[in-house]
Amino acid sequence: MTLLSSLNWRYATKKFDPAKTVSKEALDTILESIRMAPTSSGLQPFEVLVVTDKAVREKLQKAAFDQSQITEASHVLVFAAWDNYTAERINEVFDHAAAERGGGSATSDAYRERLISLYTPRPAEVNFEHAARQAYIGLGTALVAAAELKVDSTPMEGFDPAAFDEILGLRATGFRSVAVLALGYRDADHDWLVNLKKVRKPKSEMIKEIA
Amino acid sequence: MTLLSSLNWRYATKKFDPAKTVSKEALDTILESIRMAPTSSGLQPFEVLVVTDKAVREKLQKAAFDQSQITEASHVLVFAAWDNYTAERINEVFDHAAAERGGGSATSDAYRERLISLYTPRPAEVNFEHAARQAYIGLGTALVAAAELKVDSTPMEGFDPAAFDEILGLRATGFRSVAVLALGYRDADHDWLVNLKKVRKPKSEMIKEIA
Repeated sequence: MTLLSSLNWRYATKKFDPAKTVSKEALDTILESIRMAPTSSGLQPFEVLVVTDKAVREKLQKAAFDQSQITEASHVLVFAAWDNYTAERINEVFDHAAAERGGGSATSDAYRERLISLYTPRPAEVNFEHAARQAYIGLGTALVAAAELKVDSTPMEGFDPAAFDEILGLRATGFRSVAVLALGYRDADHDWLVNLKKVRKPKSEMIKEIA
Repeated sequence: MTLLSSLNWRYATKKFDPAKTVSKEALDTILESIRMAPTSSGLQPFEVLVVTDKAVREKLQKAAFDQSQITEASHVLVFAAWDNYTAERINEVFDHAAAERGGGSATSDAYRERLISLYTPRPAEVNFEHAARQAYIGLGTALVAAAELKVDSTPMEGFDPAAFDEILGLRATGFRSVAVLALGYRDADHDWLVNLKKVRKPKSEMIKEIA
Protein backbone atom coordinates (compact mmCIF):
# COMPACT_ATOMS: atom_id res chain seq x y z
CA MET A 1 0.00 0.00 0.00
CA THR A 2 1.45 3.33 -1.05
CA LEU A 3 -1.13 5.48 0.74
CA LEU A 4 1.04 6.58 3.63
CA SER A 5 3.97 7.50 1.42
CA SER A 6 1.58 9.42 -0.82
CA LEU A 7 0.22 11.31 2.20
CA ASN A 8 3.79 12.12 3.20
CA TRP A 9 4.64 13.22 -0.33
CA ARG A 10 1.73 15.60 -0.66
CA TYR A 11 1.64 19.10 0.83
CA ALA A 12 -0.59 22.15 0.43
CA THR A 13 1.01 23.48 -2.74
CA LYS A 14 1.46 27.24 -2.58
CA LYS A 15 2.92 27.78 -6.05
CA PHE A 16 1.75 25.86 -9.08
CA ASP A 17 3.49 25.75 -12.44
CA PRO A 18 0.85 27.31 -14.72
CA ALA A 19 2.41 25.59 -17.75
CA LYS A 20 1.61 22.11 -16.49
CA THR A 21 -1.80 20.54 -16.96
CA VAL A 22 -3.35 17.56 -15.22
CA SER A 23 -4.27 14.96 -17.82
CA LYS A 24 -7.91 14.15 -18.46
CA GLU A 25 -7.27 10.62 -17.28
CA ALA A 26 -5.84 11.71 -13.92
CA LEU A 27 -8.58 14.29 -13.44
CA ASP A 28 -11.27 11.73 -14.20
CA THR A 29 -9.78 9.33 -11.66
CA ILE A 30 -9.81 12.01 -8.97
CA LEU A 31 -13.40 12.96 -9.80
CA GLU A 32 -14.44 9.32 -9.81
CA SER A 33 -12.91 8.85 -6.35
CA ILE A 34 -15.15 11.68 -5.14
CA ARG A 35 -18.21 10.16 -6.76
CA MET A 36 -17.49 6.76 -5.21
CA ALA A 37 -16.80 8.15 -1.73
CA PRO A 38 -19.36 7.16 0.87
CA THR A 39 -21.78 9.70 2.33
CA SER A 40 -24.38 9.58 5.07
CA SER A 41 -27.30 7.39 3.94
CA GLY A 42 -25.82 7.56 0.45
CA LEU A 43 -27.37 10.97 -0.14
CA GLN A 44 -24.26 12.46 -1.81
CA PRO A 45 -25.55 15.91 -0.89
CA PHE A 46 -22.98 17.89 -2.82
CA GLU A 47 -21.61 18.57 -6.26
CA VAL A 48 -18.18 19.44 -7.61
CA LEU A 49 -17.60 22.27 -10.05
CA VAL A 50 -14.53 21.83 -12.21
CA VAL A 51 -13.49 25.34 -13.07
CA THR A 52 -11.10 25.88 -15.94
CA ASP A 53 -12.57 29.09 -17.41
CA LYS A 54 -9.91 31.76 -17.05
CA ALA A 55 -12.20 34.74 -16.52
CA VAL A 56 -14.22 32.91 -13.87
CA ARG A 57 -11.05 31.89 -12.08
CA GLU A 58 -9.79 35.46 -12.04
CA LYS A 59 -13.00 36.48 -10.31
CA LEU A 60 -12.73 33.61 -7.85
CA GLN A 61 -9.15 34.56 -7.02
CA LYS A 62 -10.28 38.04 -6.03
CA ALA A 63 -12.77 36.41 -3.66
CA ALA A 64 -10.05 34.17 -2.23
CA PHE A 65 -7.61 36.67 -0.75
CA ASP A 66 -5.89 36.79 -4.14
CA GLN A 67 -4.32 33.36 -3.64
CA SER A 68 -2.44 32.51 -6.83
CA GLN A 69 -3.38 28.83 -6.84
CA ILE A 70 -6.85 29.74 -8.07
CA THR A 71 -5.52 30.91 -11.42
CA GLU A 72 -2.19 29.07 -11.63
CA ALA A 73 -3.35 25.55 -10.82
CA SER A 74 -4.32 23.30 -13.69
CA HIS A 75 -7.86 22.74 -12.42
CA VAL A 76 -9.87 24.20 -9.58
CA LEU A 77 -12.54 22.02 -7.96
CA VAL A 78 -15.22 23.74 -5.92
CA PHE A 79 -17.12 21.47 -3.55
CA ALA A 80 -20.65 22.79 -3.06
CA ALA A 81 -23.09 21.26 -0.60
CA TRP A 82 -26.88 21.20 -0.58
CA ASP A 83 -28.25 24.25 1.19
CA ASN A 84 -30.86 22.07 2.90
CA TYR A 85 -32.42 18.61 2.97
CA THR A 86 -35.86 18.42 1.40
CA ALA A 87 -38.26 15.52 0.89
CA GLU A 88 -37.88 16.00 -2.86
CA ARG A 89 -34.09 15.65 -2.73
CA ILE A 90 -34.20 12.64 -0.44
CA ASN A 91 -36.88 10.97 -2.54
CA GLU A 92 -34.87 11.48 -5.70
CA VAL A 93 -31.88 9.65 -4.20
CA PHE A 94 -33.99 6.76 -2.91
CA ASP A 95 -35.98 6.49 -6.14
CA HIS A 96 -32.72 6.29 -8.07
CA ALA A 97 -31.34 3.60 -5.75
CA ALA A 98 -34.57 1.59 -5.97
CA ALA A 99 -34.50 1.78 -9.77
CA GLU A 100 -30.83 0.71 -9.88
CA ARG A 101 -31.50 -2.18 -7.53
CA GLY A 102 -34.57 -3.37 -9.37
CA GLY A 103 -37.31 -2.12 -7.09
CA GLY A 104 -37.63 -0.71 -3.60
CA SER A 105 -38.16 -2.61 -0.38
CA ALA A 106 -40.11 -2.13 2.82
CA THR A 107 -36.81 -1.57 4.63
CA SER A 108 -35.62 1.14 2.28
CA ASP A 109 -39.06 2.79 2.25
CA ALA A 110 -39.09 2.90 6.05
CA TYR A 111 -35.56 4.28 6.12
CA ARG A 112 -36.43 6.94 3.56
CA GLU A 113 -39.45 8.05 5.61
CA ARG A 114 -37.33 8.13 8.75
CA LEU A 115 -34.75 10.37 7.10
CA ILE A 116 -37.40 12.72 5.76
CA SER A 117 -39.07 13.03 9.15
CA LEU A 118 -35.71 13.51 10.87
CA TYR A 119 -34.08 15.99 8.47
CA THR A 120 -36.79 18.15 6.95
CA PRO A 121 -38.00 19.81 10.20
CA ARG A 122 -34.45 20.90 11.10
CA PRO A 123 -33.17 24.40 10.35
CA ALA A 124 -31.61 24.70 6.89
CA GLU A 125 -28.30 25.66 8.48
CA VAL A 126 -28.10 22.40 10.45
CA ASN A 127 -28.80 20.41 7.32
CA PHE A 128 -26.30 22.42 5.30
CA GLU A 129 -23.59 21.75 7.88
CA HIS A 130 -24.39 18.06 7.74
CA ALA A 131 -24.19 18.11 3.96
CA ALA A 132 -20.91 20.05 4.13
CA ARG A 133 -19.37 17.32 6.28
CA GLN A 134 -20.23 14.77 3.62
CA ALA A 135 -18.49 16.92 1.03
CA TYR A 136 -15.40 16.78 3.22
CA ILE A 137 -15.35 12.98 3.01
CA GLY A 138 -15.16 13.49 -0.74
CA LEU A 139 -12.48 16.11 -0.27
CA GLY A 140 -10.41 13.68 1.84
CA THR A 141 -10.82 10.98 -0.78
CA ALA A 142 -9.82 13.35 -3.58
CA LEU A 143 -6.71 14.43 -1.67
CA VAL A 144 -5.59 10.83 -1.38
CA ALA A 145 -6.42 10.08 -5.02
CA ALA A 146 -4.46 13.09 -6.24
CA ALA A 147 -1.46 12.16 -4.10
CA GLU A 148 -1.55 8.57 -5.34
CA LEU A 149 -1.39 9.95 -8.89
CA LYS A 150 1.44 12.33 -7.94
CA VAL A 151 -0.81 15.25 -8.75
CA ASP A 152 -0.22 18.19 -6.42
CA SER A 153 -3.18 19.64 -4.62
CA THR A 154 -4.17 22.42 -2.26
CA PRO A 155 -7.28 22.15 -0.14
CA MET A 156 -8.50 25.72 0.42
CA GLU A 157 -11.02 27.28 2.75
CA GLY A 158 -9.64 30.81 2.57
CA PHE A 159 -12.33 32.29 0.35
CA ASP A 160 -15.59 34.17 0.66
CA PRO A 161 -18.27 31.49 0.19
CA ALA A 162 -21.02 34.02 -0.54
CA ALA A 163 -18.90 35.62 -3.28
CA PHE A 164 -18.04 32.20 -4.72
CA ASP A 165 -21.74 31.26 -4.71
CA GLU A 166 -22.52 34.48 -6.55
CA ILE A 167 -19.78 34.06 -9.17
CA LEU A 168 -20.70 30.44 -9.79
CA GLY A 169 -24.47 30.97 -9.68
CA LEU A 170 -24.79 28.36 -6.95
CA ARG A 171 -27.58 29.60 -4.70
CA ALA A 172 -30.18 29.50 -7.46
CA THR A 173 -29.46 25.78 -7.87
CA GLY A 174 -29.63 25.05 -4.13
CA PHE A 175 -25.93 24.68 -3.43
CA ARG A 176 -23.39 26.53 -1.28
CA SER A 177 -19.63 26.40 -1.77
CA VAL A 178 -17.75 24.78 1.11
CA ALA A 179 -14.22 23.96 -0.01
CA VAL A 180 -11.83 24.31 -2.92
CA LEU A 181 -9.28 21.84 -4.18
CA ALA A 182 -6.68 23.22 -6.56
CA LEU A 183 -4.97 20.57 -8.69
CA GLY A 184 -1.80 20.80 -10.74
CA TYR A 185 1.94 20.52 -10.48
CA ARG A 186 4.20 22.32 -8.06
CA ASP A 187 6.64 25.02 -9.08
CA ALA A 188 9.18 23.78 -6.55
CA ASP A 189 11.66 26.58 -7.20
CA HIS A 190 9.15 29.20 -6.15
CA ASP A 191 7.14 27.45 -3.44
CA TRP A 192 8.08 28.56 0.07
CA LEU A 193 6.38 25.59 1.69
CA VAL A 194 7.76 22.75 -0.39
CA ASN A 195 10.94 22.28 1.65
CA LEU A 196 9.53 22.95 5.09
CA LYS A 197 9.23 19.91 7.30
CA LYS A 198 5.75 18.39 7.39
CA VAL A 199 4.49 18.72 10.95
CA ARG A 200 1.77 16.64 12.53
CA LYS A 201 0.72 16.07 16.11
CA PRO A 202 2.38 13.05 17.67
CA LYS A 203 0.28 9.92 17.71
CA SER A 204 0.15 9.98 21.51
CA GLU A 205 -1.68 13.30 21.37
CA MET A 206 -4.13 12.47 18.64
CA ILE A 207 -5.03 8.83 19.22
CA LYS A 208 -6.50 7.69 22.54
CA GLU A 209 -7.08 4.08 23.41
CA ILE A 210 -10.07 3.04 25.46
CA ALA A 211 -9.19 -0.57 26.07
CA MET B 1 -3.41 2.86 -8.51
CA THR B 2 -5.86 0.57 -6.75
CA LEU B 3 -7.84 3.31 -5.07
CA LEU B 4 -10.91 3.17 -7.31
CA SER B 5 -11.19 -0.59 -7.09
CA SER B 6 -10.83 -0.33 -3.31
CA LEU B 7 -13.62 2.25 -3.18
CA ASN B 8 -15.77 -0.08 -5.25
CA TRP B 9 -14.93 -3.03 -3.02
CA ARG B 10 -15.84 -1.29 0.21
CA TYR B 11 -19.38 -0.85 1.48
CA ALA B 12 -20.96 0.21 4.75
CA THR B 13 -20.68 -3.14 6.50
CA LYS B 14 -23.85 -3.96 8.40
CA LYS B 15 -22.77 -7.26 9.92
CA PHE B 16 -19.25 -7.88 11.17
CA ASP B 17 -17.77 -11.23 12.10
CA PRO B 18 -17.03 -10.76 15.81
CA ALA B 19 -14.42 -13.54 15.69
CA LYS B 20 -12.13 -11.62 13.32
CA THR B 21 -9.73 -8.98 14.55
CA VAL B 22 -7.93 -6.27 12.61
CA SER B 23 -4.18 -6.70 13.07
CA LYS B 24 -2.21 -4.10 14.99
CA GLU B 25 -0.26 -3.36 11.83
CA ALA B 26 -3.36 -2.64 9.75
CA LEU B 27 -4.93 -0.60 12.54
CA ASP B 28 -1.76 1.45 12.93
CA THR B 29 -1.68 2.17 9.20
CA ILE B 30 -5.29 3.39 9.27
CA LEU B 31 -4.60 5.58 12.31
CA GLU B 32 -1.44 6.93 10.71
CA SER B 33 -3.41 7.87 7.58
CA ILE B 34 -5.70 9.93 9.81
CA ARG B 35 -2.78 11.58 11.54
CA MET B 36 -1.16 12.47 8.21
CA ALA B 37 -4.38 13.79 6.63
CA PRO B 38 -4.35 17.52 5.96
CA THR B 39 -6.50 19.91 7.97
CA SER B 40 -7.22 23.61 7.74
CA SER B 41 -4.09 25.55 8.71
CA GLY B 42 -2.66 22.28 10.02
CA LEU B 43 -4.62 22.63 13.25
CA GLN B 44 -5.70 18.97 13.38
CA PRO B 45 -8.58 20.01 15.63
CA PHE B 46 -9.78 16.53 16.52
CA GLU B 47 -8.76 13.30 18.15
CA VAL B 48 -9.61 9.67 17.56
CA LEU B 49 -10.66 7.33 20.33
CA VAL B 50 -9.94 3.68 19.61
CA VAL B 51 -12.51 1.82 21.63
CA THR B 52 -11.97 -1.86 22.32
CA ASP B 53 -13.30 -2.05 25.88
CA LYS B 54 -16.33 -4.34 25.80
CA ALA B 55 -18.35 -2.66 28.53
CA VAL B 56 -17.84 0.78 27.02
CA ARG B 57 -18.88 -0.49 23.61
CA GLU B 58 -22.06 -1.99 25.03
CA LYS B 59 -22.94 1.42 26.43
CA LEU B 60 -22.12 3.10 23.11
CA GLN B 61 -24.28 0.63 21.23
CA LYS B 62 -27.29 1.59 23.36
CA ALA B 63 -26.64 5.22 22.40
CA ALA B 64 -26.40 4.26 18.71
CA PHE B 65 -29.85 2.84 18.01
CA ASP B 66 -28.52 -0.55 19.10
CA GLN B 67 -26.52 -0.98 15.89
CA SER B 68 -24.60 -4.23 16.18
CA GLN B 69 -21.44 -2.95 14.52
CA ILE B 70 -20.54 -1.08 17.68
CA THR B 71 -19.96 -4.31 19.59
CA GLU B 72 -19.29 -6.78 16.77
CA ALA B 73 -16.65 -4.86 14.84
CA SER B 74 -13.03 -5.46 15.69
CA HIS B 75 -12.34 -1.82 16.58
CA VAL B 76 -14.52 1.22 16.94
CA LEU B 77 -12.98 4.61 16.16
CA VAL B 78 -14.74 7.68 17.49
CA PHE B 79 -13.76 10.95 15.82
CA ALA B 80 -14.11 13.82 18.30
CA ALA B 81 -13.62 17.45 17.29
CA TRP B 82 -12.55 20.45 19.35
CA ASP B 83 -15.58 22.12 20.91
CA ASN B 84 -14.11 25.53 20.05
CA TYR B 85 -11.01 27.32 18.81
CA THR B 86 -9.06 29.14 21.50
CA ALA B 87 -5.84 31.15 21.40
CA GLU B 88 -4.25 28.53 23.65
CA ARG B 89 -5.06 25.69 21.29
CA ILE B 90 -3.93 27.58 18.20
CA ASN B 91 -0.73 28.70 19.91
CA GLU B 92 0.09 25.16 20.93
CA VAL B 93 -0.11 23.98 17.32
CA PHE B 94 2.00 26.85 16.00
CA ASP B 95 4.56 26.53 18.82
CA HIS B 96 4.91 22.84 18.01
CA ALA B 97 5.36 23.55 14.29
CA ALA B 98 7.94 26.25 15.02
CA ALA B 99 9.89 23.89 17.28
CA GLU B 100 9.80 21.11 14.69
CA ARG B 101 10.95 23.47 11.97
CA GLY B 102 13.73 24.99 14.01
CA GLY B 103 12.22 28.32 14.93
CA GLY B 104 9.25 30.43 13.93
CA SER B 105 9.10 33.06 11.21
CA ALA B 106 7.49 36.43 10.71
CA THR B 107 5.15 34.82 8.19
CA SER B 108 4.00 32.08 10.53
CA ASP B 109 3.64 34.51 13.42
CA ALA B 110 1.46 36.79 11.30
CA TYR B 111 -0.61 33.83 10.14
CA ARG B 112 -1.05 32.61 13.71
CA GLU B 113 -2.26 36.02 14.83
CA ARG B 114 -4.64 36.23 11.90
CA LEU B 115 -6.19 32.86 12.77
CA ILE B 116 -6.56 33.80 16.42
CA SER B 117 -8.22 37.09 15.56
CA LEU B 118 -10.48 35.40 13.00
CA TYR B 119 -11.53 32.32 14.97
CA THR B 120 -11.68 33.20 18.64
CA PRO B 121 -14.45 35.85 18.41
CA ARG B 122 -16.75 33.43 16.57
CA PRO B 123 -19.45 31.45 18.40
CA ALA B 124 -18.18 28.11 19.73
CA GLU B 125 -20.73 26.30 17.55
CA VAL B 126 -19.30 27.82 14.35
CA ASN B 127 -15.80 26.78 15.36
CA PHE B 128 -16.94 23.32 16.36
CA GLU B 129 -18.59 22.83 12.95
CA HIS B 130 -15.39 23.93 11.26
CA ALA B 131 -13.37 21.50 13.38
CA ALA B 132 -15.88 18.73 12.63
CA ARG B 133 -15.35 19.23 8.90
CA GLN B 134 -11.61 18.69 9.39
CA ALA B 135 -12.34 15.44 11.21
CA TYR B 136 -14.29 14.34 8.15
CA ILE B 137 -11.19 14.76 5.97
CA GLY B 138 -9.55 12.28 8.34
CA LEU B 139 -12.62 10.06 8.15
CA GLY B 140 -12.42 10.06 4.34
CA THR B 141 -8.74 9.23 4.46
CA ALA B 142 -9.31 6.39 6.94
CA LEU B 143 -12.07 4.94 4.76
CA VAL B 144 -9.69 4.77 1.83
CA ALA B 145 -6.85 3.36 3.95
CA ALA B 146 -9.09 0.63 5.37
CA ALA B 147 -10.35 -0.31 1.91
CA GLU B 148 -6.81 -0.44 0.53
CA LEU B 149 -5.97 -2.90 3.33
CA LYS B 150 -9.14 -4.90 2.62
CA VAL B 151 -10.38 -4.06 6.08
CA ASP B 152 -14.14 -3.58 6.17
CA SER B 153 -15.48 -0.39 7.63
CA THR B 154 -18.72 1.37 8.47
CA PRO B 155 -18.84 5.14 8.81
CA MET B 156 -21.62 5.89 11.28
CA GLU B 157 -23.47 9.03 12.26
CA GLY B 158 -26.53 7.32 13.71
CA PHE B 159 -25.73 7.88 17.36
CA ASP B 160 -26.52 10.34 20.13
CA PRO B 161 -23.42 12.58 20.28
CA ALA B 162 -24.27 13.93 23.74
CA ALA B 163 -24.59 10.39 25.10
CA PHE B 164 -21.31 9.37 23.43
CA ASP B 165 -19.60 12.42 24.91
CA GLU B 166 -20.90 11.45 28.33
CA ILE B 167 -19.86 7.79 28.09
CA LEU B 168 -16.40 8.70 26.79
CA GLY B 169 -15.88 11.66 29.12
CA LEU B 170 -15.25 13.93 26.17
CA ARG B 171 -16.71 17.28 27.14
CA ALA B 172 -14.39 17.70 30.12
CA THR B 173 -11.43 17.44 27.75
CA GLY B 174 -12.90 19.92 25.23
CA PHE B 175 -13.98 17.47 22.54
CA ARG B 176 -17.31 16.48 21.00
CA SER B 177 -17.96 13.24 19.13
CA VAL B 178 -18.78 13.72 15.46
CA ALA B 179 -18.47 10.40 13.65
CA VAL B 180 -17.78 6.74 14.22
CA LEU B 181 -15.82 4.34 12.06
CA ALA B 182 -16.29 0.67 12.82
CA LEU B 183 -13.48 -1.55 11.52
CA GLY B 184 -13.38 -5.30 11.09
CA TYR B 185 -14.30 -8.06 8.68
CA ARG B 186 -17.69 -8.66 7.12
CA ASP B 187 -19.89 -11.60 7.96
CA ALA B 188 -20.99 -11.89 4.35
CA ASP B 189 -23.51 -14.67 5.01
CA HIS B 190 -25.49 -12.45 7.37
CA ASP B 191 -25.08 -8.99 5.87
CA TRP B 192 -28.16 -7.80 3.98
CA LEU B 193 -26.23 -5.03 2.21
CA VAL B 194 -23.22 -6.94 0.95
CA ASN B 195 -24.83 -8.15 -2.27
CA LEU B 196 -26.90 -5.09 -3.08
CA LYS B 197 -25.65 -3.07 -6.01
CA LYS B 198 -23.56 -0.06 -5.03
CA VAL B 199 -25.46 3.01 -6.19
CA ARG B 200 -23.97 6.41 -6.85
CA LYS B 201 -25.21 9.47 -8.68
CA PRO B 202 -24.16 9.55 -12.31
CA LYS B 203 -21.14 11.70 -13.03
CA SER B 204 -23.27 14.06 -15.13
CA GLU B 205 -25.30 14.92 -12.05
CA MET B 206 -22.47 15.33 -9.59
CA ILE B 207 -19.69 16.94 -11.62
CA LYS B 208 -20.25 20.26 -13.41
CA GLU B 209 -17.71 21.79 -15.74
CA ILE B 210 -17.23 25.51 -15.90
CA ALA B 211 -14.97 25.74 -18.90
